[in-house]
Amino acid sequence: MDTTVGGNKRVRRAYGFDEVALVPGPLVIDPRDVDISWTLGGIRFDIPLLAAALDGAVNPKLAAQMSKLGGLAVLNLDGIQTRYEDAEAILQAIADAPADGVIQFIQDLYAKEAIKPELIARRVRQIKELGGIAAVSAAPHTAKAAGMAAVEAGADLFFIQSTVGSVRFESTRIAAFDVAGFVKESPIPVIVGNTVGYAATKELMEAGAAGVLVGVGPGHICTSRKVLGIGVPQITATADCAAARDDYHAATGRYVPIITDGGIRNGGDIAKAIAAGADAVMLGSTIAAAAEAPAPGYSWGMATSSADLPRGTRIKVGTSGTLQEILFGPAHKDDGTMNLMGALRLSMGSLGAHNLKEMQQAEMMVAPSLPNEGKALQRAQGVG
Amino acid sequence: MDTTVGGNKRVRRAYGFDEVALVPGPLVIDPRDVDISWTLGGIRFDIPLLAAALDGAVNPKLAAQMSKLGGLAVLNLDGIQTRYEDAEAILQAIADAPADGVIQFIQDLYAKEAIKPELIARRVRQIKELGGIAAVSAAPHTAKAAGMAAVEAGADLFFIQSTVGSVRFESTRIAAFDVAGFVKESPIPVIVGNTVGYAATKELMEAGAAGVLVGVGPGHICTSRKVLGIGVPQITATADCAAARDDYHAATGRYVPIITDGGIRNGGDIAKAIAAGADAVMLGSTIAAAAEAPAPGYSWGMATSSADLPRGTRIKVGTSGTLQEILFGPAHKDDGTMNLMGALRLSMGSLGAHNLKEMQQAEMMVAPSLPNEGKALQRAQGVG
Amino acid sequence: MDTTVGGNKRVRRAYGFDEVALVPGPLVIDPRDVDISWTLGGIRFDIPLLAAALDGAVNPKLAAQMSKLGGLAVLNLDGIQTRYEDAEAILQAIADAPADGVIQFIQDLYAKEAIKPELIARRVRQIKELGGIAAVSAAPHTAKAAGMAAVEAGADLFFIQSTVGSVRFESTRIAAFDVAGFVKESPIPVIVGNTVGYAATKELMEAGAAGVLVGVGPGHICTSRKVLGIGVPQITATADCAAARDDYHAATGRYVPIITDGGIRNGGDIAKAIAAGADAVMLGSTIAAAAEAPAPGYSWGMATSSADLPRGTRIKVGTSGTLQEILFGPAHKDDGTMNLMGALRLSMGSLGAHNLKEMQQAEMMVAPSLPNEGKALQRAQGVG
Amino acid sequence: MDTTVGGNKRVRRAYGFDEVALVPGPLVIDPRDVDISWTLGGIRFDIPLLAAALDGAVNPKLAAQMSKLGGLAVLNLDGIQTRYEDAEAILQAIADAPADGVIQFIQDLYAKEAIKPELIARRVRQIKELGGIAAVSAAPHTAKAAGMAAVEAGADLFFIQSTVGSVRFESTRIAAFDVAGFVKESPIPVIVGNTVGYAATKELMEAGAAGVLVGVGPGHICTSRKVLGIGVPQITATADCAAARDDYHAATGRYVPIITDGGIRNGGDIAKAIAAGADAVMLGSTIAAAAEAPAPGYSWGMATSSADLPRGTRIKVGTSGTLQEILFGPAHKDDGTMNLMGALRLSMGSLGAHNLKEMQQAEMMVAPSLPNEGKALQRAQGVG
Repeated sequence: MDTTVGGNKRVRRAYGFDEVALVPGPLVIDPRDVDISWTLGGIRFDIPLLAAALDGAVNPKLAAQMSKLGGLAVLNLDGIQTRYEDAEAILQAIADAPADGVIQFIQDLYAKEAIKPELIARRVRQIKELGGIAAVSAAPHTAKAAGMAAVEAGADLFFIQSTVGSVRFESTRIAAFDVAGFVKESPIPVIVGNTVGYAATKELMEAGAAGVLVGVGPGHICTSRKVLGIGVPQITATADCAAARDDYHAATGRYVPIITDGGIRNGGDIAKAIAAGADAVMLGSTIAAAAEAPAPGYSWGMATSSADLPRGTRIKVGTSGTLQEILFGPAHKDDGTMNLMGALRLSMGSLGAHNLKEMQQAEMMVAPSLPNEGKALQRAQGVG
Repeated sequence: MDTTVGGNKRVRRAYGFDEVALVPGPLVIDPRDVDISWTLGGIRFDIPLLAAALDGAVNPKLAAQMSKLGGLAVLNLDGIQTRYEDAEAILQAIADAPADGVIQFIQDLYAKEAIKPELIARRVRQIKELGGIAAVSAAPHTAKAAGMAAVEAGADLFFIQSTVGSVRFESTRIAAFDVAGFVKESPIPVIVGNTVGYAATKELMEAGAAGVLVGVGPGHICTSRKVLGIGVPQITATADCAAARDDYHAATGRYVPIITDGGIRNGGDIAKAIAAGADAVMLGSTIAAAAEAPAPGYSWGMATSSADLPRGTRIKVGTSGTLQEILFGPAHKDDGTMNLMGALRLSMGSLGAHNLKEMQQAEMMVAPSLPNEGKALQRAQGVG
Repeated sequence: MDTTVGGNKRVRRAYGFDEVALVPGPLVIDPRDVDISWTLGGIRFDIPLLAAALDGAVNPKLAAQMSKLGGLAVLNLDGIQTRYEDAEAILQAIADAPADGVIQFIQDLYAKEAIKPELIARRVRQIKELGGIAAVSAAPHTAKAAGMAAVEAGADLFFIQSTVGSVRFESTRIAAFDVAGFVKESPIPVIVGNTVGYAATKELMEAGAAGVLVGVGPGHICTSRKVLGIGVPQITATADCAAARDDYHAATGRYVPIITDGGIRNGGDIAKAIAAGADAVMLGSTIAAAAEAPAPGYSWGMATSSADLPRGTRIKVGTSGTLQEILFGPAHKDDGTMNLMGALRLSMGSLGAHNLKEMQQAEMMVAPSLPNEGKALQRAQGVG
Repeated sequence: MDTTVGGNKRVRRAYGFDEVALVPGPLVIDPRDVDISWTLGGIRFDIPLLAAALDGAVNPKLAAQMSKLGGLAVLNLDGIQTRYEDAEAILQAIADAPADGVIQFIQDLYAKEAIKPELIARRVRQIKELGGIAAVSAAPHTAKAAGMAAVEAGADLFFIQSTVGSVRFESTRIAAFDVAGFVKESPIPVIVGNTVGYAATKELMEAGAAGVLVGVGPGHICTSRKVLGIGVPQITATADCAAARDDYHAATGRYVPIITDGGIRNGGDIAKAIAAGADAVMLGSTIAAAAEAPAPGYSWGMATSSADLPRGTRIKVGTSGTLQEILFGPAHKDDGTMNLMGALRLSMGSLGAHNLKEMQQAEMMVAPSLPNEGKALQRAQGVG
């Protein structure tokens, strides 16, 4: 199972979505009977799908709509929404900017205006007023101030997110962010990420996290692997963290769900993530392609705005349909980006899984999607 | 042989057509002496090739022609032929429809008209009148009614096909389809599919199936893997099911052939499928490219017409030659899509296999077709 | 080392040129001191390179030129040269034919005229008169008649070649070709191919072959893998046959060289073939790209002319330089297709191999050439 | 861990940059606290980055600038700078030459003028006068004469570089270059390369090398793998040589740093090289893309000028920014080619590595970057 790449350098083989496939067994269940609900921070959700805290994916209106449909959207507290009063105009400007120089354009917009506590409060209240569950996300260094403002305004769930989230942080210059302390003091549940690996996940759970976001560097709008060399394919990352969750649960009786975040493109990836052990999945670009998305047709990552080392750019995601159609269909495309929950139900039914816990036990095979097979298809379609 | 993708998630490596190659040994046999006949449901066929129950591949005329040439074509009872009196006009309309919006066009056509028992009967009688063997296919939920009409009209073989076929089906809303009961009551042999896996195959054989269709999600006109995450590469699927067939045969004395269905593009794939353990193969797009095919130059899958979750689209397959040329040549192309049976004979002869049972024992290697090698060839041909 | 693809189907992993690389060690030798000579059928050659018996690669003039340069060219006795008096005009016509329909054009030309013993004799005499070593090749079913004519005209070496060459051949319709008998009666050394695998190679050596051609289906102008499913990557094929050669040598004291034939594109492939165990290599398309080649700029395989099942087409190979430049440089391209022997010498020197026998022991690694790396390069060159 | 490719040919699997990824653990460090300094030949450098001795990458001015920024640039003593007084004009001519025939154009320019000791001295003095550390590189056969001239002019470090560098060299025609003798007599530290493999590295260290360059054939402007079949992917090469360094250090107490040279394209590759065991990395094309580079926008390898067997061509590298921006940012691109040292610091911090020695122990996984994933991204960006 493990080998060396040379000398004494030991490695494991890691797997991504495109390298595995799910395998039906002898039992098939009516998709309508499949239970895809789950619980995060004491709140029960009808569907195991979160919209990622990207400026191009989530604004207060979309967050409320997502709640209505049974899922959860997370609002980014470090982005445009909390820096600019008229966020929609800025988002439109980013969508309209020419591709050439767009990274610097984004860098400048994020640098020019500071995060404003009153805007944090306003965005949270907007979500609540529209009837949504208010989940918000901040980086560790802004979490304290942002958290206070958000909680006071009525936020329900707090996400702390950084490129690599961890309990232990060393610095000679700034005070280390104390995850356990923050969680203890927070009146609302705190979900922490992003992480990979058994040990880091377990430490976050021991620090009191109500949920853990899994995924470092695998997303489509993220170039961490090219820039930093860091990036664990999501099937392996999810399976490793699921093992930590199960062991922590067995030892303490507390069940902390893990959410696979990054790189998910279609219904097949969602089914695979859960079969690898995830309790839910987080989507970015796919949600940014909803008709209701804040930056029509475009998305960019949290690290795109980094002043000195951007890891991602603005990508065109197009518009595939309404949020309702993306989640529940009907689909008029066959690429797996529409009716995601219908696809998950049919996948689980076909695999004989009554609920998400059983889906986590579904049979999986290593089955690379061959370049040639894709090409054969393209040729047949007159595309390639 | 098996490993984990991370944590405790155990997996096996699965293989597709493009990842294996056949290996000649010290014996070569005259291709003309090779026996490629086989038996399904008590009927002996000269060639181990079935035309898939796709609306773009099989109509009564093609079915009769296929019988004449020694093979078997299966007519889809859930499609255009049994919904529309003038099926040919509808099929032509699908072929003529613009690519943009074609999925919805197909969805609408399949939704607008119900399946009519009198059309089922008429199609079966048309095949018989033209001298063909009448093999028909229905989904489990239409199988009872369709089966009665087809049998009365003189059908010879009945196929029950769904995305994932199985003996055990659970639903709180509809009565489960009783495979064993259906088979027992059916006056004609029943072939069931599609399936993968040792256990599911054995259960279908124990339920009385006269044949088992192998293949979930690997076809060219099928996007199950993207939409559902489900899809087992055909070499592995075939070898697993062949093991179940052999064990079932050893235990009961009854030999139930397995038919590899999906993803086969050329003579090489046919040879590989049989070497992996198949008794016969089922082809879709390749047959849809026959001059006699019902929807000139186009094909689409059974799941393309799904109202809320289409898994496939219409693809252009072109027209490669007459059915006679596709099956027996002469070929004037070198891509393996013509003279399929000549290719199978030459392959078996080159591998020293006197018949299909010996071909199932042919030596196979894992030998990926490298993207670079393909490109080198394309460059040389001035294509890429 | 071996595994199963599923069920009970056991397989080995096979490797092609693009999947391996050679590894330098602590000793470097002056390339000019490297000995690359070898012996076939009692004749010593300065360079381990043969031109393949393709109509687009070898005519009498090129054969003589190849001898002069220290190598060996094999003339096809089943092709245009022995069917047409004015072969050059026919070859030019094939080169000039439009791509569309070229396979049928070739099929017709090979079918229209029979092989003529007097032309066989004339071609052999032409080679001898030009001072060359006359090596000729025929298929088993034409070998007897062709052999007689060629030997009488003064041929030096006789090659028997078929898609899969073997000692044991079964037919109820034609008499089996008796390899051992033919070899025994032949007054000149007989080289047999093509083969792969330890057992088949050993049987050919035991039947008296003076050399064995290794390679079934890996060539660039050959589509056996697509048509028949047959094809063993050349590194594995060569290493397997080399083991048979070494065991046969140890047991009998007779050393029968093996020649890797098919799929070799550049100096790197030549070095790898020898490091895998080959005594020499056979090139087709690369030689067809010589300024002296018979069909300016084009090549096609022996199986392209098959009347009912062509496995290959005419490909454009261009013209890269004179035979002298291709073999010994100077090269003004960096793609490894020029100065092949200079490259082999430098490769052997860099690997510390004094001669071909030592080169067969060079360290090899499995090191796939990644598609992404190629693309990075193309991008940098402004190509992709 | 090792297997055979067939017969008795044993091989190891080797890995390149694109096949591995780094894995964060539970500790994160402030990037500003990370120590990335190292020592070569007794000189301490702030950053572990060398500019390769390519004519398109390094001239005296760039070398001085590189020193100022904390790194080291190596000047090629066998190239244009020491053959032509007005080197800049020649370099500009190479940059301006049409792509067609550029290899021969380069071959001619390098052949026409000999290396001149007075130009060697002048280039060294230019670097020193500009305040730089003068590191120079020569091939073994020119090392003696060049070394003398360079040392007299005040050179600080001497590099001996050939395609495959080794202690043992055999020739019947020229005197073998005595590495140990040269090192002993040299008044300045001598770094030797390029090499791969445990044994060769250890011998170079035992011969007194002050540093070893790792990498044979993996670079972007190098086609050694195609021409010679030689080429070891850099992750494996680095890990093997690092093991030799560590064992040599344990046995002798002398620490000889290894420098990974070739194939590095971005910050991610730098991080991976060090995690594989490198003490520093050498970059070519990336430095040639600096605004200060000698041949604006172009680069070519040392082996491009080979008179009879060029292994590389001129490639367009473009201009990405100033050397300062390439090394320290700010980056306005997300492809990992800008702010390389910022990226390394962030990568190390994210992996919990305080310094380069700890980074060498970072967790690595085998995690291929799948072609499909890349394509998905390109599609999204409207590129592919």
